[in-house]
Amino acid sequence: MNQTTLELSINAAARREADEPRSPVVTLDRPLQLESGSTLAPLRIAYQTYGELNAQKSNAILVCHALTGDQHVANLHPVTGKRGWWSTMVGPGRPIDTDRFFVICSNVVGGCMGTTGPASTNPATGEPYGLDLPLVTIRDMVDAQAMLIDHLGIETLFCVAGGSMGGMQVLQWAARHPDRVFSALPIATAHKHSAQNIAFHEVGRQAITADPDWREGRYLVEGATPRKGLAVARMAAHITYLSEPALQTKFGRNLQDRDARTFGFDADFQIESYLRHQGASFVERFDANSYLYVTRAMDYFDLAADAGSLANAFMGTKTRFCVVSFTSDWLFPTEGARQVVHALNAAAANVSFVEIATDKGHDAFLLEVPELFATTKGFLDAAAKTRGLTRL
Amino acid sequence: MNQTTLELSINAAARREADEPRSPVVTLDRPLQLESGSTLAPLRIAYQTYGELNAQKSNAILVCHALTGDQHVANLHPVTGKRGWWSTMVGPGRPIDTDRFFVICSNVVGGCMGTTGPASTNPATGEPYGLDLPLVTIRDMVDAQAMLIDHLGIETLFCVAGGSMGGMQVLQWAARHPDRVFSALPIATAHKHSAQNIAFHEVGRQAITADPDWREGRYLVEGATPRKGLAVARMAAHITYLSEPALQTKFGRNLQDRDARTFGFDADFQIESYLRHQGASFVERFDANSYLYVTRAMDYFDLAADAGSLANAFMGTKTRFCVVSFTSDWLFPTEGARQVVHALNAAAANVSFVEIATDKGHDAFLLEVPELFATTKGFLDAAAKTRGLTRL
Repeated sequence: MNQTTLELSINAAARREADEPRSPVVTLDRPLQLESGSTLAPLRIAYQTYGELNAQKSNAILVCHALTGDQHVANLHPVTGKRGWWSTMVGPGRPIDTDRFFVICSNVVGGCMGTTGPASTNPATGEPYGLDLPLVTIRDMVDAQAMLIDHLGIETLFCVAGGSMGGMQVLQWAARHPDRVFSALPIATAHKHSAQNIAFHEVGRQAITADPDWREGRYLVEGATPRKGLAVARMAAHITYLSEPALQTKFGRNLQDRDARTFGFDADFQIESYLRHQGASFVERFDANSYLYVTRAMDYFDLAADAGSLANAFMGTKTRFCVVSFTSDWLFPTEGARQVVHALNAAAANVSFVEIATDKGHDAFLLEVPELFATTKGFLDAAAKTRGLTRL
Repeated sequence: MNQTTLELSINAAARREADEPRSPVVTLDRPLQLESGSTLAPLRIAYQTYGELNAQKSNAILVCHALTGDQHVANLHPVTGKRGWWSTMVGPGRPIDTDRFFVICSNVVGGCMGTTGPASTNPATGEPYGLDLPLVTIRDMVDAQAMLIDHLGIETLFCVAGGSMGGMQVLQWAARHPDRVFSALPIATAHKHSAQNIAFHEVGRQAITADPDWREGRYLVEGATPRKGLAVARMAAHITYLSEPALQTKFGRNLQDRDARTFGFDADFQIESYLRHQGASFVERFDANSYLYVTRAMDYFDLAADAGSLANAFMGTKTRFCVVSFTSDWLFPTEGARQVVHALNAAAANVSFVEIATDKGHDAFLLEVPELFATTKGFLDAAAKTRGLTRL
């Protein structure tokens, strides 16, 4: 072992101890009643917390993660070793300030980072559920989170915040548990999945189920992994997370480690190499069946249909909302955010709306976007003042 | 055989005779010099013609087809039995009027409808080429077409017209053979493929090559077909051909033949059913390796890089241009058409530019868009007058 390798090992060990705690997991006795009519028991929920809950239990912020995110918001990720997906947003002195707020994030039901999902053991068979797991919805994800919040003894969340599918959960929380949500910060999201959104998800699911190593969903039992199918699904989805101008600026038609085109099918272009890398690395950390379940939950999301109208979904709410969209986000465009804002207005809710100019596309909610940070900090500061929250 | 089946058979037979001639195929003695430096011989070109060539041979219009199109512009398609892909545009009394013009369309080199492509027999082995076919480019497609035009004894084309990849060929024709193109009608196209365009193509190629039935490209020799991979590729691409508003209007979140969601992975939504159908039917008529070759040709297209600048590519041209784009085309947006127009202006070319307002997306060039028909007819009429073409 040379010096560099040794240092890396020491660093890795230190990192594991300092920053990569195994997520606490709570196993809940009560079954989760699912929207489909099925029940799920036992329900395990894996989560992370940051900061301290105050004596009044009034400073808790629930962060909801997106499709391929997880509970590792602000610590090093135990699988990838990378910084948490919202470590720019959440931490001491950050917009979601863990010196001030108690931040909770749990892996969604249907996920693959410790919460019950298709890779979990089916108590009826002793084998992984696979497709025998009942389908879950955004509402089911939120109800599971509510059970966790009960378990933590928290009555009302100071804020529920999240982007993309996380934003769907924010909206669902506000609609389903209005008295438990003091403020809500839905970012880069919509109250329903569009036809184009569903179409891209369906391509991803078809790519996974086309892989013979998917084995009709039984790959874990049979010792296989549908790597290629899952990688293709990730590649297709990844394009939708980036804006065309961002792709143009970042990659354009630049060649990858070569001076000229090879007149073949290698990754001549940087964008090809980048996408292949995205696909390959995703497979290392995500479960293919979870991808099916969680994409399906997003497709099924339609708050307006559930409540008769979107305004109905929020009627009488006391929650304070800040709705955020990004100009270059073509997956969840500003128009969708505007529909939510109009419905909140119709429901006489307290709502502010910020459309942030950026070329970073849908992924902007995960990136260093100063206006997003300023908006978040300003909204939370004002809400904290209204709630009488002083610094710890 | 019942009555209906009998009638269908009779109709099919009649159709075969009347409207579905086998395409003429010319085998050219001279090898095709490819941009890669390789040569291709023998070169077979399958093509269709409509209308009559006048005595001066001055009324020929070359139509260039798109990625998954072919030479069957205006006759019933021999495989699908459907009307040709541009039968609304090309025919007696149509905007490209076969009572007046002699219309030619050939299957591109690398294609799979009779022109030499990866499914053709490699004379060196007696087996299908597969990946042993040298890579072809848009320039190679145009040079093959030029050899066909030579073969037909036509010196100058009255017009070269096409959409999408067909439009790339139009631009390449004008840049490479300026003296042979009296007028050019590039529609819904660009002078280079963008990073996002390449990205979507790469997803399609990865889907195909991930299919174990692709057999490293040797599926024809080994008696397999990478159906699932090709279907996924088609599904992903198909989304990019439609605008989000069109998808919303046509499908929205409508369910397919059911009253409620099934809480499963069936095609609950119409958009899912539609995409699955698109994938499944495409596989019946297209060769997977051709999809790899032809997408690659598009990715490699960059007229500006070839000529130092886009204006250089057209400098001194006498060709009359009409550049057409569609407002809702996000695959080949108006911005790309505008770049072509600016370059043509810089090259002091005769150019008109029409951006057509439609919600039909990229596919608009294939659909009934009255403004496209009027633009085409007007442009061709004016060019015919300039060229002194009278009605036959």
